[in-house]
Amino acid sequence: MPDIQQHRRDRLAAGLAARDADAALITSGVNVRYLTGLASSNAAVLVPAEGVAVLATDSRYALTAELQAPGTELVVTRAVAAGLAALAAERGLRRLAFEAHEMTVEQRDELATIAGIDLRPLGRAVEELRIVKDPAELALLGQACALTGQAFDRVAPQIAAGVTERQLATLIERAMIEAGADKPAFDTIVASGPNGAIPHHEPGGRAFAAGDLITIDCGARVGGYHADMTRTVVLGPPAGWQREVYELVAAAQWAGIAAAAPGAAVADVDASAREVIEQAGYGEFFGHGLGHGVGLEIHEAPALGPGQPGRLADRVPITVEPGIYLPGRGGVRIEDTLVVRSGTLPAARDLLTTTTTATGRELLVL
Amino acid sequence: MPDIQQHRRDRLAAGLAARDADAALITSGVNVRYLTGLASSNAAVLVPAEGVAVLATDSRYALTAELQAPGTELVVTRAVAAGLAALAAERGLRRLAFEAHEMTVEQRDELATIAGIDLRPLGRAVEELRIVKDPAELALLGQACALTGQAFDRVAPQIAAGVTERQLATLIERAMIEAGADKPAFDTIVASGPNGAIPHHEPGGRAFAAGDLITIDCGARVGGYHADMTRTVVLGPPAGWQREVYELVAAAQWAGIAAAAPGAAVADVDASAREVIEQAGYGEFFGHGLGHGVGLEIHEAPALGPGQPGRLADRVPITVEPGIYLPGRGGVRIEDTLVVRSGTLPAARDLLTTTTTATGRELLVL
Repeated sequence: MPDIQQHRRDRLAAGLAARDADAALITSGVNVRYLTGLASSNAAVLVPAEGVAVLATDSRYALTAELQAPGTELVVTRAVAAGLAALAAERGLRRLAFEAHEMTVEQRDELATIAGIDLRPLGRAVEELRIVKDPAELALLGQACALTGQAFDRVAPQIAAGVTERQLATLIERAMIEAGADKPAFDTIVASGPNGAIPHHEPGGRAFAAGDLITIDCGARVGGYHADMTRTVVLGPPAGWQREVYELVAAAQWAGIAAAAPGAAVADVDASAREVIEQAGYGEFFGHGLGHGVGLEIHEAPALGPGQPGRLADRVPITVEPGIYLPGRGGVRIEDTLVVRSGTLPAARDLLTTTTTATGRELLVL
Repeated sequence: MPDIQQHRRDRLAAGLAARDADAALITSGVNVRYLTGLASSNAAVLVPAEGVAVLATDSRYALTAELQAPGTELVVTRAVAAGLAALAAERGLRRLAFEAHEMTVEQRDELATIAGIDLRPLGRAVEELRIVKDPAELALLGQACALTGQAFDRVAPQIAAGVTERQLATLIERAMIEAGADKPAFDTIVASGPNGAIPHHEPGGRAFAAGDLITIDCGARVGGYHADMTRTVVLGPPAGWQREVYELVAAAQWAGIAAAAPGAAVADVDASAREVIEQAGYGEFFGHGLGHGVGLEIHEAPALGPGQPGRLADRVPITVEPGIYLPGRGGVRIEDTLVVRSGTLPAARDLLTTTTTATGRELLVL
């Protein structure tokens, strides 16, 4: 039985004829990892329509590549893309499809000087393969999400007046590592009080005070897979507007989750949640898309937003994360990572990010 | 007095005439941060030869941009590069210099459809400005390096037989955060026993055993600035070859540090260290460059290696990190971050990464 990376390369190779290509030159680091198993800051892989793939990396990663990328031919060089393009030319793989969304203009200009190859765009072929996850990927993602929830639950009792955004972010990141994460999946966001109006606020020295809404966006990384979860809590009895906004975002999130069925158009999933917010008159305060795919990258295909193309399918993990951001006052965002599944109703078992302290459904008052 | 980012933009703008450009379109995230103060995953800045710079970012970062990037005109859009290019066309800034080493082929093809602009390469103009650091940058870098040394010293007593590579990496990263780092500057490398032959080994489940050489490559990040330090220690009395290789690497590192004076050619600095290793017959086991610049990126200009162009200057922080990697047996690397300074001998005050447990100069036996 071929290994999983070989299977992925075979799928990519099978699509090359339709793209008039003899081989694909993959230079995106995360795509190289997906197709070979090697995680390296300097690697590329040449996947021919027929035959064995060639992995190029530099001497720092050569031994690792031998261990982690069986079934590939290994070339050790610093100039990974140019090295593979020259090899393709030698082997008569003239029509070379490259990742135009990844390769820089400078790199392409360098490849253009190599005789015997004819460059053409591959498009996001590997990103498209990556949308539907295999069971091993879902297991890692599930583990990353479970650790995230555990870390949040462990830290939640420490959220109190006087604690700073930065301190809470550090506590959560530490709790994720202690729970077994490889690292945080991204820089934890903690936005309190008026800072909550900034969706990607960088946690700072602001100390929590009674009456604050506090938005916490965090995730663990396990085996290369990224969890993504947001909870908003309130310190002390919530004001009327805080409860209203929270319940609206929770309702919108639930509408989005309910709509996230296999076959659903991603734009419709976004619209299902967005309508709830728009109909309550808060549409202008929800400025971003509803969610995104997650996997080897924290943000990957599919993007869930107005006007985005495509449909969901079985085994596609996504985030659903509506938010309302009121300048000067604060904000609420609720986000879960879930897996779109055939034959299931939206239920807890599809939600990978589960927490007991702040479930997302009801505003947690601390 | 203009702020520091304004001063940097002025320096970039002053060089545009020589490049036949009316404006520079900066799309590298770290360069945008350098020129505006805004750290964002989606931002670009248009720096005209004359007049006010225009910063583009999406709604998630709009409020942050207003606070962090005074003195710029702000445009809120998701399509930051295309938005600024269209604005440049409107304002008659036809000759637009772009970062070909950063912009993807897909992005350039998209810009090429905008009427009224004429794209041309800017080169690494901003990276070149970034090589010499200003005092505020050196202060942050010094803090990052100091925290790194403190974290190492705190954790060193816990290095013992039975501890795994992964556990030690976690201990060090946690100690850096506790010491006040924003985050680790990169994924900590811990390579023990035979794994030490892999320069960029990913820490795994291997437990340390008596007789192991253990290489630890770590660094803290503070205010966006990256520290980089490597120590190699030995568990129990070292074998003759271990001591020999360690002393050779330490001597090579010292030769490199001594050569790292303002005005020195970077290739000569590399050669000063490399010769020590080559003359002892280990040249083939030192497969990477001697070091690199550090700052807003963990690896930035100048690269110190054979054949690299350029010379060092006052206020340039670099790493000096020779290593010897013996397949199947293990390896030694010693690395410090230091600042090249005018008018000083190589002395402790230029070395930013200082440790008391394992100084780098002598093999620490645990």
